[in-house]
Amino acid sequence: MNRITEALLKTVSDWKGNFKGAYNIREDGQCAGRRSSENIRIESKEDGPGLVIHISPDTRGETVYIPACVTKGNVDDLVYNDFYVGEGADVTIVAGCGVHTDNEGEAKHNGIHRFFLGKGSHVLYKEKHIGTGTGTGLKKINPVTDANLAEEAVMEMDTIQIGGVDDTRRTTRAVLGAGARLIIHERILTDGCERAATDFEVSMDGEDSGVDLISRSVAKGDSCQEYHSRIQGNCRCTGHSECDAILIGNGKVNAAPELYAGDIDASLIHEAAIGKIAGEQIIKLRTLGLTEEEAEQKIVEGFLK
Amino acid sequence: MNRITEALLKTVSDWKGNFKGAYNIREDGQCAGRRSSENIRIESKEDGPGLVIHISPDTRGETVYIPACVTKGNVDDLVYNDFYVGEGADVTIVAGCGVHTDNEGEAKHNGIHRFFLGKGSHVLYKEKHIGTGTGTGLKKINPVTDANLAEEAVMEMDTIQIGGVDDTRRTTRAVLGAGARLIIHERILTDGCERAATDFEVSMDGEDSGVDLISRSVAKGDSCQEYHSRIQGNCRCTGHSECDAILIGNGKVNAAPELYAGDIDASLIHEAAIGKIAGEQIIKLRTLGLTEEEAEQKIVEGFLK
Repeated sequence: MNRITEALLKTVSDWKGNFKGAYNIREDGQCAGRRSSENIRIESKEDGPGLVIHISPDTRGETVYIPACVTKGNVDDLVYNDFYVGEGADVTIVAGCGVHTDNEGEAKHNGIHRFFLGKGSHVLYKEKHIGTGTGTGLKKINPVTDANLAEEAVMEMDTIQIGGVDDTRRTTRAVLGAGARLIIHERILTDGCERAATDFEVSMDGEDSGVDLISRSVAKGDSCQEYHSRIQGNCRCTGHSECDAILIGNGKVNAAPELYAGDIDASLIHEAAIGKIAGEQIIKLRTLGLTEEEAEQKIVEGFLK
Repeated sequence: MNRITEALLKTVSDWKGNFKGAYNIREDGQCAGRRSSENIRIESKEDGPGLVIHISPDTRGETVYIPACVTKGNVDDLVYNDFYVGEGADVTIVAGCGVHTDNEGEAKHNGIHRFFLGKGSHVLYKEKHIGTGTGTGLKKINPVTDANLAEEAVMEMDTIQIGGVDDTRRTTRAVLGAGARLIIHERILTDGCERAATDFEVSMDGEDSGVDLISRSVAKGDSCQEYHSRIQGNCRCTGHSECDAILIGNGKVNAAPELYAGDIDASLIHEAAIGKIAGEQIIKLRTLGLTEEEAEQKIVEGFLK
């Protein structure tokens, strides 16, 4: 494992020199370390790049780390990871990703994650993305998340793009069984000429399923963000989505949430707001001694927390 | 003018045996009556079906009626009406439309309206749509509204589809100059196998322009509605849109509002809610002696008022 991977891991997956429990570290398309635990079995895919991760039924309180790092230009990494979460398991999955280039070559990671959550299982899925390095090569991360939630399963997705990623296309699809719940907190920060597109498609197919989707974005510099979501209520269910964006400088945001109610007992709501930081917020913080830039920084941090 | 036209006019354009002021009545693709006033000149288009309506600058308090009726099957009416509203004018335009068929032939009206609002003018645009008749032929109304608002112009659109229209595709586009305001109240009721699609595209190009778009729909029976809006803030401006829908029976609704902020001083918000009538609202009205159907009817009327 090289030093850039170590630095990226510290940022994206709480690496402190080691991981407790099961993990797989992916570095420039190769495995740089792996450990299974008694309840969490990590195996290489037989038919292509990636992992098959089996989490035994009723596994409780364990964390599995599957960070992926690209540490140099001219790497175009593609990986397929499948997670089978046993009935009644309650686990945390940490799937950070860092891309780094110090030359003109592109550093690119495409991670396609499929989740099969067994009945009554609970997954907290954490994903941090960052781009670093002094190169002119573009840093790109394109995550695809495909989640199938069985009866009463709960998935919480806590995803954040901290910065430095030139181009990202994020795709999240989920199908919810009876009583299943999906909670998504997404935060995206873009600056410079960065582009970010995020697309959610959630289908509530089981009675009393529910989704709560909160997306917050900050578009600074000349960056552009596009948000699209489609929440389908096909039965008695509840859906809520919210996308809020702050513009700074020449940042631009397009927000296109979509709600489809195909059943009289589907109850769906959505809110969106886009605008700059309110002047009075800046003034308040400046009276406390902060410069305008510091005040702006504080507000953005609070918003993306 | 035939009796069906008279009946339709009563419903869609407040006809009481005559109109006060300027009017043009369109019946099955023909002119069934026209009058200009001193300030409102109605002329036939030279290059196709339709009217050119000139409203003199500073015209105040006048109403112009331009209802269109299709009174039988196998009529596919297409009309292009252009409105030139002079600077400082303040007028009401009533543009109701009724389609009627008593046989298996389709009754269809396509009205393409273009508005050029001069500086500081104010237009209240009222549009009621209805389908009637005992025929099996489909009743269709496809209105296109294209509005150009000069500096400080204000356009209020008050549109309602009362019922009986099997298929409608409503398209509204507007471009707003500096300080211009667009206020839209749309209400659509569908039942049976009816289909309704509505699409708004508003571009705020002038500083301090603003749009307020409220769409309410009720989808009963097996009807389907689709809502799409795109509000573009290209400068310092404010945009608000809201689409609320009530489902009854097997009604289905898709709501896809879109906000685009291309300027740091664009402030845009959106809300949407889709669901059935809350049980406690029905119960409250039933304790007042209403049947369940009457209670539902009251709530729908209030919602669409």
